[in-house]
Amino acid sequence: MAFAPEHHGLTEADFARLKSMTETRLADLVPDKGSPARAARHALLSPAKRLRAIMTMLAARQCGGLEEDALDAACAVEMVHTASLIFDDLPAMDDAALRRGVPSTHVAFGEDVAILAGIGLMNGAFGVIARDGQLSNGQKTRLVDILSASIGWAGLVNGQALDLEQEMSQPMSAGARKASTLDEMHHCKTGALFVAAVLSGAECAGADGLTADHLCAYAGSVGLAYQAFDDVLDQVVDDAGAGKSTSRDAGKLTSVTLHGLDRARTMAEQHIEEAIAHARRAGRGDAPLADLAIFISHKFDEKFARTAAE
Amino acid sequence: MAFAPEHHGLTEADFARLKSMTETRLADLVPDKGSPARAARHALLSPAKRLRAIMTMLAARQCGGLEEDALDAACAVEMVHTASLIFDDLPAMDDAALRRGVPSTHVAFGEDVAILAGIGLMNGAFGVIARDGQLSNGQKTRLVDILSASIGWAGLVNGQALDLEQEMSQPMSAGARKASTLDEMHHCKTGALFVAAVLSGAECAGADGLTADHLCAYAGSVGLAYQAFDDVLDQVVDDAGAGKSTSRDAGKLTSVTLHGLDRARTMAEQHIEEAIAHARRAGRGDAPLADLAIFISHKFDEKFARTAAE
Repeated sequence: MAFAPEHHGLTEADFARLKSMTETRLADLVPDKGSPARAARHALLSPAKRLRAIMTMLAARQCGGLEEDALDAACAVEMVHTASLIFDDLPAMDDAALRRGVPSTHVAFGEDVAILAGIGLMNGAFGVIARDGQLSNGQKTRLVDILSASIGWAGLVNGQALDLEQEMSQPMSAGARKASTLDEMHHCKTGALFVAAVLSGAECAGADGLTADHLCAYAGSVGLAYQAFDDVLDQVVDDAGAGKSTSRDAGKLTSVTLHGLDRARTMAEQHIEEAIAHARRAGRGDAPLADLAIFISHKFDEKFARTAAE
Repeated sequence: MAFAPEHHGLTEADFARLKSMTETRLADLVPDKGSPARAARHALLSPAKRLRAIMTMLAARQCGGLEEDALDAACAVEMVHTASLIFDDLPAMDDAALRRGVPSTHVAFGEDVAILAGIGLMNGAFGVIARDGQLSNGQKTRLVDILSASIGWAGLVNGQALDLEQEMSQPMSAGARKASTLDEMHHCKTGALFVAAVLSGAECAGADGLTADHLCAYAGSVGLAYQAFDDVLDQVVDDAGAGKSTSRDAGKLTSVTLHGLDRARTMAEQHIEEAIAHARRAGRGDAPLADLAIFISHKFDEKFARTAAE
């Protein structure tokens, strides 16, 4: 089922425009000099959905701000996301050879240069915020805090550590404990950066605290849905179709290994419904973030149907 | 030769006090929960000189500010330094098993957790700045910019890339080109973070641009001296004495392999003299950073004499 623009405020063209804005700006933000920067560009500018950047700009719009004013903050979030993919794919982590349909960064540039590229991107994200020409110093300080919290000991870093640890955990762990671990892992691996995306967009638009709370809840729900969709697709799509290495999920704790394929899919759809409800409580007027949640769900349906038909 | 306190404004006790302040605060800034944070504490709280933190606080003092007001900025610099050591020691980089007299982080915690610890520390440094209770948002924004520039594509990341590349470079490269590459590599690997240290201290004290320029020149000179001293010691000190793995320098481009031991040592002393001159032009009244340069030189002399006597 294609995303039906006539039913929503946002069209496919809107998403394409925001994606294009992001990619043009990203290409300006990372230099083309030195092997770490070239490796970073390889990872950063490969075909990608730019979901987190789009979410940042739509959050700004939903809070009454301009998408453009949140562009650099959106790019910072996207740079952090790409850095996390470079690190996750390393031989010492998930050892994935393929990412975004191209060889992963350590395969293309060597492990040493890939690590430097990841450091450069993650660090560079903070520099992009500090040098943003649109925002006040107060906004920049809060954006740095938001981004740092999403990466840190209770964010992406913790998510990847939990992911690595659960591979070695006892298969006899109780189901409830596993479900709670899975939710925490999914929240840290994906939800934390979605939270950073919406809070950054809200900050760029000068949103109030209550709106930010609704947006946080939205991002958390989208994060859980997204990881469950991802687990479902990893189960059914082969390496070529997904554009990344998928076989590593075998034997891991995922939504599918814990709940089964059908239940995982149903739970993901429920999280999307929750996300839509949260989005409609935040900001004023139309709720482009609700449309984004619907868009994510439709894109998954399309991909699932395409794969099932193969 | 011991550092002679009677000739200088700063005593050994001053350095010990600043080191202790730094270590107490660092222990508060990184949690004790989760394997990446525990690995980070292993690396961060092992015995170390805290030179960059002390330099940050002395820069603040030299610019008329309080050491205490630059403490968190100093800790941020120290966290970045420790992160860079974790990354540099990885098997894909210098593959060093020993650091600060203890097993390097990937040896003690595994490569995956070590990488997460490095990310957590580098990222955490920006969070520490954003949450600093003493500074204005303008100061915080400039500190983030300073720190990000010192790490990035023209800083530590570039220094490590040059270091990795020169291992593979042609042995027939002309001497002058090698010397220029060595200086750039040394500046990026060490000088860049020294520059971040003094500029951060200056920013915390609200120093003017001219003072900052003198401090940059100072930090550059100390950086070149420090790397040359380090190359000299690596040549003569065995693994146990240096507290880190040293044999990796064999066949590398270093001050010693390029200039010979005696000339490298003389050049290091000249850089210290330059640093002292730059320090005396910056700020008002006494020049604690000049004392710090003398202190560094004396500590090297002590270590060199001790090693030669063994």
